[in-house]
Amino acid sequence: MSKMINMSLEEVHSTTRALLEKQGFNEAHAQSIANTVTAAERDECRHHGLFRIPFYVNGLKSGLATGDKEPTVSDLAPAVIRIDAHYGYSNLALERGDHLLADRARQFGIAALVINHCHSIVALWPEVERLADRGLVGMSFVSASPYVAPAGGTKPLFGTNPMSFAWPRQDGPPFCFDMATSASARGEIQIRMRDGRQLPEGWAIGPDGKPTSDPKQALLGAQLPFGGFKGSALATMIELLAGPLVGDFLSVESGEYDTANTGTCCGGQLVLAMDPIRFMTNGNREQQMAHAEKLFGLILAQEGTRLPSDRRYEARKRTARHGVEVPQSLYETLQALKSGKADGSLNGYEGDHLLKQTTAA
Amino acid sequence: MSKMINMSLEEVHSTTRALLEKQGFNEAHAQSIANTVTAAERDECRHHGLFRIPFYVNGLKSGLATGDKEPTVSDLAPAVIRIDAHYGYSNLALERGDHLLADRARQFGIAALVINHCHSIVALWPEVERLADRGLVGMSFVSASPYVAPAGGTKPLFGTNPMSFAWPRQDGPPFCFDMATSASARGEIQIRMRDGRQLPEGWAIGPDGKPTSDPKQALLGAQLPFGGFKGSALATMIELLAGPLVGDFLSVESGEYDTANTGTCCGGQLVLAMDPIRFMTNGNREQQMAHAEKLFGLILAQEGTRLPSDRRYEARKRTARHGVEVPQSLYETLQALKSGKADGSLNGYEGDHLLKQTTAA
Repeated sequence: MSKMINMSLEEVHSTTRALLEKQGFNEAHAQSIANTVTAAERDECRHHGLFRIPFYVNGLKSGLATGDKEPTVSDLAPAVIRIDAHYGYSNLALERGDHLLADRARQFGIAALVINHCHSIVALWPEVERLADRGLVGMSFVSASPYVAPAGGTKPLFGTNPMSFAWPRQDGPPFCFDMATSASARGEIQIRMRDGRQLPEGWAIGPDGKPTSDPKQALLGAQLPFGGFKGSALATMIELLAGPLVGDFLSVESGEYDTANTGTCCGGQLVLAMDPIRFMTNGNREQQMAHAEKLFGLILAQEGTRLPSDRRYEARKRTARHGVEVPQSLYETLQALKSGKADGSLNGYEGDHLLKQTTAA
Repeated sequence: MSKMINMSLEEVHSTTRALLEKQGFNEAHAQSIANTVTAAERDECRHHGLFRIPFYVNGLKSGLATGDKEPTVSDLAPAVIRIDAHYGYSNLALERGDHLLADRARQFGIAALVINHCHSIVALWPEVERLADRGLVGMSFVSASPYVAPAGGTKPLFGTNPMSFAWPRQDGPPFCFDMATSASARGEIQIRMRDGRQLPEGWAIGPDGKPTSDPKQALLGAQLPFGGFKGSALATMIELLAGPLVGDFLSVESGEYDTANTGTCCGGQLVLAMDPIRFMTNGNREQQMAHAEKLFGLILAQEGTRLPSDRRYEARKRTARHGVEVPQSLYETLQALKSGKADGSLNGYEGDHLLKQTTAA
């Protein structure tokens, strides 16, 4: 077990920001990535936290991702806004889109935000949570690198293609989920490979197209969608919404584009926002919110249940007080990147070097 | 095996329409229900075809559903239309909403249709398929009677809560799926009960809260969401979108409302439409559609795959030529209802009387 270093959330943010600026990101991008990384560490979603920083840097150094382009906003329709990220990371584009999308949703009842030409290595809950913080219902869809076979098939085609959803709550953070349409996260398989553990049934098939419980064969073969044909249908929908609908890459095209094998996917994203009060006849928001609370109450009244983001929200309370624990090896990598002693030319996602650093604890 | 009667699709439509008018539906409702029933028979989706007619009649005779109210249209926001079905069946309200929703989607890029106070015993693919026929992307969400436990829980709370999606294709019917968020349809469990077959793992729990493979225990207990916590999260989202968002029933409330135990759920529905061309910068619709076709081609290039609605579309070709086969017992029930010799006071959904009629073949 590697030694752990305690960092406050402020330190996570300032280190990330300084590091990214040192590595060539402009202030706006460094700030927006630091926001997302810090939010992930705060919620103990470590796979999208400090662990990801070398990936951001790698993407920039590879020449595929940009770190200094201001996203460009345009209107595609009265209720459809487009942001061209100019191959920067989605973090800044999504932040820039927040209030624009919220304003349109309030004006028209429902609105959509298209992000084009963005590199994406974030979770999908931050943007829908921010919409919920503004009192709106949010949904988000993105495709990814091609790792997942369609149901019945044997070869990688879909990304892990997540979708997220958030519903605002008055006395706390939103009801929110962010789920891959694959049976497991890719990182879960990598962790099991490192630990010499087998995979459960239904996660993956090997390069021979046959079900496998061997993590290595799974990584060489294909992941499977969750829930068979249903998950596969959802994954297809997400390919369409984040790809052809918005005029951007399919997951396979994103994979072809990533010639440097950075593991960062490039493409489009779709975010929808609805203003709940514009869906009611009586305009009684309090009643509407209370109605949703009744549902949450009925779910939680059953022993053994939980709401999707409850673990994140519990972590959030902890880390606000106690900060986060970071493996020393990762901490040292971050310090080297911050001081300029390292340049970001680290192993890609498929290597387990970085994974070891993060998960050794 | 019961004797089968061949009916042409025209006969299915005219019989359904005449029967419903005889039983007290007005012309508009009889027509719209006949449209949906015929479309289901055409696609060999028998659970939403002629089999359902006694349920429509039961709902009306129970006094819960209306059969003569014209749906009322109003605007909730520029891109949000509301149709109050006045406790009629959703079929007519959805048909009335088609062009209104399509027009708004073309105008604003994205738009929503809220249906309130409707009884719903239809599949969700007809309305999104009709939107796709108009060149739009459609999504639809509805809750149902409470049969499904939340993941981790043991008591019925959610409906089978389906969602549907359709993407227009230029040379044929759309890419379309319509899926319950429960692991199985309720009818599947009833069929296995009749046939004395066990249930696969993951479908249901008994009244004791423990996993069961006994169909009877499953019907007394609770169905399970598909894909564990992920399906449960989707089911919750659908409860929110078709309930509190639009100011209508949760599945549990729909269950409480159905005092006559008709098995017909009452509540709200949400339909979204997007005009794909309003999501593109270059306005090249042909290119956009070709891009989606590339995805479908890549899926189908893998042996063992299929697109979600392919079976329906294959059936559609068959039945256009050869009509449909209807079990004699069901045929006789329909004739009795059409002539007024029967009044619709048949067994409810939980009884397997009707089920036997339909599935005996």
